[in-house]
Amino acid sequence: MSEIGWSNIEENVAKEAFEKAYQREITTLIEEVRVKASAIAEIKDMWILHDFLSARRHDIDGKYEYRNSVLIFVFARLVKEGWLNINELEGLDRDKLAKITALARM
Amino acid sequence: MSEIGWSNIEENVAKEAFEKAYQREITTLIEEVRVKASAIAEIKDMWILHDFLSARRHDIDGKYEYRNSVLIFVFARLVKEGWLNINELEGLDRDKLAKITALARM
Repeated sequence: MSEIGWSNIEENVAKEAFEKAYQREITTLIEEVRVKASAIAEIKDMWILHDFLSARRHDIDGKYEYRNSVLIFVFARLVKEGWLNINELEGLDRDKLAKITALARM
Repeated sequence: MSEIGWSNIEENVAKEAFEKAYQREITTLIEEVRVKASAIAEIKDMWILHDFLSARRHDIDGKYEYRNSVLIFVFARLVKEGWLNINELEGLDRDKLAKITALARM
């Protein structure tokens, strides 16, 4: 799958969708961290927030990797997790969309 | 210095002072984290908060070690950093207080 070509139009669609998903996930995460932080009552809660941030940072750093060779998998994951709607990938060729849709259901 | 004995009275004074300093530092830190979290505007700010928490956790875990053999140094540090007033260690013998006072000035 790593040898699939991406046209310029597809590249634009992909970059825009990628950025949109990233902004959505980050915005949601920032809000979540604010809520968790405002609810800290004792030291234990603060270390729970720290562990949460460690895990999310690792997760996000690994997930948002813009490389053509893995983009199909990245988009499938983003659709599956709800950060992206499959409609927002319109403009990609049918084959890619079919793969993303199938992988997102797995 | 590790062979200094601690009477029961001194133990009580030490434990109370230790707990007091810990609560003060933690309370201040929780407030600080709340303020920082509420000011998060972008992802970079969130990772700065994460780094801050990593450093503070490491620092606090190392600092609040209740062992008689290191207590003089722990108290000296807490006094130096302002988490404890030397008066709150009244009840310890003169020699210990003199050592703590001297170390806190270093």
